[in-house]
Amino acid sequence: MARWTCAAAAAVTVVLCSQAFADEGMWTFHGFPLDKANGALKTTLDQAWLDRVRTATVRLSNCTGTFVSGDGLILTNHHCIEGCLAELSSKDKSYVEDGFLAKTREEEKKCQTQVVDVLSQMEDITGKIGAATAGKDEKAANETRKATLTQLEQECEASSKLKCQSVTLYEGGQYWLYKYKRYTDVRIAFAPESGIAAYGGDPDNFQYPRWCLDMGILRAYEDGKPAKPANFLKMNFAGPQAGDPVFVSGHPGSTDRLLTLAQLKEKRNVDLPQWLLRYSEIRGRLIQFSEENPTNERIAADLLNGIENSIKVRRKQLDALHEDALLERKAADEAALRQGLTSGDPWKDVEAALAVERGISVRYTWIEAGAGFQGRLVNYARTLVRGAAEREKPNTERFREYTDGALPRIQQQLNANVPVYPELEELRLAQGLERMREWLGPDHPVVRKILSKEGPQELAKRLVTTTKLSDPAERKKLWEGGSAAIGTSTDPMIALARDIEPAARELRKTYEDGVEAPVRIAQEKIAKIRFAKLGTSVYPDATFTLRLNWGTVGAWVENGTPVEPFTRLSRAFERATGADPFRIPDSWEKVKTKLDMNTPFNLATNSDIVGGNSGSPLISAKGEVVGLLFDGNIHSISGSYWFDTEKNRAVAVHPAIIKEAMTKVYGADALMKELTAKR
Amino acid sequence: MARWTCAAAAAVTVVLCSQAFADEGMWTFHGFPLDKANGALKTTLDQAWLDRVRTATVRLSNCTGTFVSGDGLILTNHHCIEGCLAELSSKDKSYVEDGFLAKTREEEKKCQTQVVDVLSQMEDITGKIGAATAGKDEKAANETRKATLTQLEQECEASSKLKCQSVTLYEGGQYWLYKYKRYTDVRIAFAPESGIAAYGGDPDNFQYPRWCLDMGILRAYEDGKPAKPANFLKMNFAGPQAGDPVFVSGHPGSTDRLLTLAQLKEKRNVDLPQWLLRYSEIRGRLIQFSEENPTNERIAADLLNGIENSIKVRRKQLDALHEDALLERKAADEAALRQGLTSGDPWKDVEAALAVERGISVRYTWIEAGAGFQGRLVNYARTLVRGAAEREKPNTERFREYTDGALPRIQQQLNANVPVYPELEELRLAQGLERMREWLGPDHPVVRKILSKEGPQELAKRLVTTTKLSDPAERKKLWEGGSAAIGTSTDPMIALARDIEPAARELRKTYEDGVEAPVRIAQEKIAKIRFAKLGTSVYPDATFTLRLNWGTVGAWVENGTPVEPFTRLSRAFERATGADPFRIPDSWEKVKTKLDMNTPFNLATNSDIVGGNSGSPLISAKGEVVGLLFDGNIHSISGSYWFDTEKNRAVAVHPAIIKEAMTKVYGADALMKELTAKR
Repeated sequence: MARWTCAAAAAVTVVLCSQAFADEGMWTFHGFPLDKANGALKTTLDQAWLDRVRTATVRLSNCTGTFVSGDGLILTNHHCIEGCLAELSSKDKSYVEDGFLAKTREEEKKCQTQVVDVLSQMEDITGKIGAATAGKDEKAANETRKATLTQLEQECEASSKLKCQSVTLYEGGQYWLYKYKRYTDVRIAFAPESGIAAYGGDPDNFQYPRWCLDMGILRAYEDGKPAKPANFLKMNFAGPQAGDPVFVSGHPGSTDRLLTLAQLKEKRNVDLPQWLLRYSEIRGRLIQFSEENPTNERIAADLLNGIENSIKVRRKQLDALHEDALLERKAADEAALRQGLTSGDPWKDVEAALAVERGISVRYTWIEAGAGFQGRLVNYARTLVRGAAEREKPNTERFREYTDGALPRIQQQLNANVPVYPELEELRLAQGLERMREWLGPDHPVVRKILSKEGPQELAKRLVTTTKLSDPAERKKLWEGGSAAIGTSTDPMIALARDIEPAARELRKTYEDGVEAPVRIAQEKIAKIRFAKLGTSVYPDATFTLRLNWGTVGAWVENGTPVEPFTRLSRAFERATGADPFRIPDSWEKVKTKLDMNTPFNLATNSDIVGGNSGSPLISAKGEVVGLLFDGNIHSISGSYWFDTEKNRAVAVHPAIIKEAMTKVYGADALMKELTAKR
Repeated sequence: MARWTCAAAAAVTVVLCSQAFADEGMWTFHGFPLDKANGALKTTLDQAWLDRVRTATVRLSNCTGTFVSGDGLILTNHHCIEGCLAELSSKDKSYVEDGFLAKTREEEKKCQTQVVDVLSQMEDITGKIGAATAGKDEKAANETRKATLTQLEQECEASSKLKCQSVTLYEGGQYWLYKYKRYTDVRIAFAPESGIAAYGGDPDNFQYPRWCLDMGILRAYEDGKPAKPANFLKMNFAGPQAGDPVFVSGHPGSTDRLLTLAQLKEKRNVDLPQWLLRYSEIRGRLIQFSEENPTNERIAADLLNGIENSIKVRRKQLDALHEDALLERKAADEAALRQGLTSGDPWKDVEAALAVERGISVRYTWIEAGAGFQGRLVNYARTLVRGAAEREKPNTERFREYTDGALPRIQQQLNANVPVYPELEELRLAQGLERMREWLGPDHPVVRKILSKEGPQELAKRLVTTTKLSDPAERKKLWEGGSAAIGTSTDPMIALARDIEPAARELRKTYEDGVEAPVRIAQEKIAKIRFAKLGTSVYPDATFTLRLNWGTVGAWVENGTPVEPFTRLSRAFERATGADPFRIPDSWEKVKTKLDMNTPFNLATNSDIVGGNSGSPLISAKGEVVGLLFDGNIHSISGSYWFDTEKNRAVAVHPAIIKEAMTKVYGADALMKELTAKR
């Protein structure tokens, strides 16, 4: 591949060099190389274009979306709102399977745990953080850094109506304060059946060619009325042509392109294999659970879909990290950056910290990180127990996930009246406990403490059947009661959470002081070295904050055969077997003769995207929505570590199939009218 | 660790050097270094001792055992006869859970799929193979080699009453013909409950200290009467002292200590992670299936136990291959062996063949190797379909697993009247098909052929409920009917096997010609280089053939704390939680007050063992059985790749607990009388 050849030829300039080939880069809006993009694509984007796109793009709690109407309609993926559909469902009715259409605005249903954030302002606070931590040792610097971030967020929220969140870019090379307008009243307007939204299911996931109507429409509300966003992008239902320039604005979740070789090896040798082991077993249990009866299948579907997606991602990430050529390139990059080091070696410091991490990682994973404590109920309990203790501390001394700025979102989730299925809770809790006993050993103090009188299955059953935490009112009471309520609670799930808390906190402390603190200092040093040699011609790793990249419509060549950039509706019908996940929903079969079988269905682009970008708009140079990004091809998964210009492709829903479906299959006339209204 | 230090200091002599430290080595009986062993242990073993031990040790189909009486009693592990116990069980009665005791010889029950082999003669055929393949290209040499091995086995069986099997040692450095006396009438005399045999279950597996009565007693029969073996070893119920020399005679299944670095990396990067992914999911399904009701738990137990054991093994093997120091040592070994190469580089040839393998490995695994076709029924079908075609060919042209010498064992398994549980068959078949569709993709021809009209679950259900292959008479009829019967069979499982056979055979052919052939030639060359530099001071990798090693009783130091070499009965009771797998069976609780709580239970030695050694005797210098090997500690799993002298320990049942249990708990008086009879 071109990129590696280039790397081998000129190791020092490899990163710069590679970008000459690639439509690569998850650029921030404050660091977007406008001239370079316009030059590469022969476009004339300007700052106004950037501002409009930025304020029309929204961040959901798990995905990206776009304002596509003046009355707050948001276009995103079905798989981004599957959680909401599942929360609105019950044992007997699945909106995931059946889809949902609000014929009027009054029928729109609230997504209780969803939020919509619009990035309004961005402030560079690198200098403030540097000043606060200057001269401090690793541990003190780590604590001060976090306290300062909390304090800056707090001051920002006090002085504005915005949601203020700090962002760490370049692994600590820059700190920013991002300020969002947040909508907490988010309702669902439309979702097709999962049978067509995820046609092909897990077998087709990360594949292309593809036929998925992976779309959903939300509406943001403010003060009980449809929101009036500052900006929205118009749908262009004709869609793009092959070769057209397209831009993706969105929130890529996480990449590891700037990690050190040692960190990548740790992922390859420890993190990924262990995660895959754990979740493959859970997958097996959930599949078998689903086979027991249709109700089980319904209540486990959302969880299982998410796990299967994550398994595929991590499986291919592991494959990527087993490519010797990739690691050799990383080694060459590092060698080039290390040239001329005068004192200290931050790469060695990272290695030393990883050795500390290895000593605690099994215990940390199972206890503090909660691999042993799976399910909604036990996590409610852990949040309540920890939250009560944390809230007694001054804001800047708390764990970062319990600062004042974070509390409203925690309360939103605790108070949401979402279904809790005891069978599923029991399964997940028992599974986690059982496997924790295997990994920590039956003689580990935490294991002995909770499993010396009951087996995992018995304990899970007792806890799930006797806790009252499935009731939002009970959770609210405990949250509001604080430490006093938690300390005297006789709820058995709260008791479990109390039992494990001391060991969990001790591990967290060891991790923060022994691993996080030195790694962060080392990473800041590495970032400085990189800036000194390469400037900001390198984009930062993804952090689930707003990014923009450019690319073109087009597929790739697989084993010598060119892949077509567009798929068509006809083939979806031809490929159907009648059995899930290759079954076309009845709603489509019924109107089959009326459909234009030549309608473009999905399309491929060379956009540089990753999980979190789901629901992102494909935007034309004119600023119109010409596609709805929902996946990448199988080669895109290595994008966690590098961008493969030749084969890494993004996959989007074509606007034409959205129109065809909403018009001819679902009769979503009011929504279509809104989507096609003149500005 | 001592061994690595040594390797770093003197790379060329590393292998010799390392053996100076270690009681390491899985020596053949024809290559056992008697003088070295006697020198190290101050013993006076001689050829007669070796012959007696060899002919008293037996190979089961899956394990090792020892003749311990003149009337054919065989001591082995509970987990080695768990399959037999499961085959004798039904939905309503589990001999695995409940144990079994034949109070008289008439009550002994036949294990239908078990065999007992005693190694009677060994013939070096390296020269014959070399002569047959000389001057041939890779592909022709590979075919000729296999044909010659078949022919030599055939001639041997024709001229003797022995079972003749060729053995490839040193990855092709030596070829031997091993000649066994085979007993096919094997009956079960005693097994304790799994609750005490596998006390601690999977959490305690590969752990030490330990408390397992992992024993079982079989009896070989000949002509309907108890066999009179040429030799047997006497039990010494007092057991050994710490520091005593002990010998392990047995059949270690497989090690990879002589593989090339490239082969080890392939295991690390591809084989092990993919296997673990597959089986962790199956584990999850089986656990969930078992949770559904007690019958399911019973019928899945044997399978699940085996899978959990294999998962732990492979998980720790993967960890071992992620130790950079191990791979560096391998690289140094290879560099030393490669020094002075004049023409060609067999290590590069191995790498080239592995690249070919990588191109087909996913398809090979799922189709030919059967990852996609799990369960007894589908495997009966595949055996019947392939067996019919193979038997039409001359003996030397068949796949090696269908030669005349192999057929009796195939027929024994096909004709065995063992329970087939449809629920379990459906689960396994559906799981395999579903995952095959994910890995091969829905558009792979084999997937389209079998899954275009039904989903995996539907297809599995239809096949399992309509096939007649669960009836041994039906299988016998199809086997005896040969190709004609197979070709006209309307059994749907046979039809499936026929459907996949062409693709499976094509993959097999590609593998044999493109991978197996060049790798074998390369390995023969490497073996010659190794012999030239190191002689036969190196033992061959394990091949599930008879080996002997020496060691001493003793444990190790874990994190600075010495581990005691013996455990005691009292602690088993103290550790019980009342819930499986930490529940002491009622039979023990009932007689608790009569038991000597100070009885030694398990013990540790530094013997070099691996799976397949299960059931091996620990033998004193006097030639008495002083322990029953059943496991290794967690560090023993890296023994697949190297022997860690400091921490790798074997774990055995102490004879004193065997006596205590058989006498006071089970009242197995007749058996005890036989075990304690004078010669």
